[in-house]
Amino acid sequence: MTDAKSMDAKLMNIRALVFDVFGTCVDWRTGIAREVAAFAKTHGISGVDGAKFADAWRALYQPRMEEVRSGRRPWTILDVLHRESLDRVCADFGVKGVAAAALDEFNRAWHRLDPWPDVIEGLARLKTKYVIAPLSNGNVALLLNMAKRAGLPWDAILGAEVARAYKPLPESYLRTAAILGLAPAQVMLVAAHNDDLAAAAATDLKCGFVPRPAEYGPGQTKDLAPERAWDVVAADFLDLAGKMGC
Amino acid sequence: MTDAKSMDAKLMNIRALVFDVFGTCVDWRTGIAREVAAFAKTHGISGVDGAKFADAWRALYQPRMEEVRSGRRPWTILDVLHRESLDRVCADFGVKGVAAAALDEFNRAWHRLDPWPDVIEGLARLKTKYVIAPLSNGNVALLLNMAKRAGLPWDAILGAEVARAYKPLPESYLRTAAILGLAPAQVMLVAAHNDDLAAAAATDLKCGFVPRPAEYGPGQTKDLAPERAWDVVAADFLDLAGKMGC
Repeated sequence: MTDAKSMDAKLMNIRALVFDVFGTCVDWRTGIAREVAAFAKTHGISGVDGAKFADAWRALYQPRMEEVRSGRRPWTILDVLHRESLDRVCADFGVKGVAAAALDEFNRAWHRLDPWPDVIEGLARLKTKYVIAPLSNGNVALLLNMAKRAGLPWDAILGAEVARAYKPLPESYLRTAAILGLAPAQVMLVAAHNDDLAAAAATDLKCGFVPRPAEYGPGQTKDLAPERAWDVVAADFLDLAGKMGC
Repeated sequence: MTDAKSMDAKLMNIRALVFDVFGTCVDWRTGIAREVAAFAKTHGISGVDGAKFADAWRALYQPRMEEVRSGRRPWTILDVLHRESLDRVCADFGVKGVAAAALDEFNRAWHRLDPWPDVIEGLARLKTKYVIAPLSNGNVALLLNMAKRAGLPWDAILGAEVARAYKPLPESYLRTAAILGLAPAQVMLVAAHNDDLAAAAATDLKCGFVPRPAEYGPGQTKDLAPERAWDVVAADFLDLAGKMGC
């Protein structure tokens, strides 16, 4: 009873829940693999493993952002980084002769990812009591197109592009809270990734962990469990809604 | 028939509708006057005319923003400009002795404005076919709190704070289109103000005019009618939805 009461008090000041998106809200690996298969079929390409292609594309995500985070490169949105990575992955997989416009369209595969089954209902419940918004490294158009297609009921589209800083830089969390007109401790980051939460906690945001053990496919070894006593740990977004009083 | 067909073709590429908010979506004058009355009652202040107070507060809106637009002052959000103006208006109206925290709360009157009666249904219909977002000089927290309270179903919260430029600077329109991942001509600004539309048109956005003849109260003389052949002219947001095929 004491634990439950103290948790309630700690969570009572939270006004907004901001969400990691790739992995936490949407299943990027299955979605990209499906898009790779469709792309390969359209262009008569054979022998490309969709899941391996997805993993290779995603593997370039952090190194590309690090160019921007480090200041070696001026601010560049994720759609552009994804497009550059795509050229590299196509070369590595021997995909060639595809027109640039078709690759531009394929690049928007990241706008067409599907949420995990609990996400839409969980967000709709959380929205009744809290401001809900993505805090993703995806750019606004990506997150907006994804939300329109999938029915994600965000109150606002926030994230790296609005904050002009990629996670896990402290500015990405702090500017997002400031834009919301809230103190960091009034904002909770929900993520399936312990390192994202650790960076958010260092800036005084509250933290909610929801495991997504299938994000990286059957061989996943990382982020299967919370690595700290996060403010909330929930099995999925429905459990999270319940724990947040919705 | 020819006119109707050419209008259809012109509107067919539009993917997003962005909206002026103060005056176009919400009735700021009635709302602020109501808040002034409540504030005066709470603090035992008599003899303040709510509508005149609202007009005086709003009259400082453009001069304060001009300080930022001109570069004489660094980027500053509207909540802060409103708060500074409030001190000035209180002085002019002889309101004194109110604690700063109470004035901070009163300043959020701009977050609690009500939409015109056609707005919510009109936006809900437009949302089925288009991305809908504010393109307001209001900051994100102001627009978000307003939307949560009033039920405005925006897909995203855009505007001056996200674009880092106040209307009618061209950057406010152009950066908003870029953030949406769209060409300017794929975006339509909806406003009750001819000057806002003229500035948007100069950056190649499409323009929709909806008159709000009661915005400035019974004596309004401005913006009673379209001053150009805007791409769409609609009586209200329901008429606009019909004209946009929703």
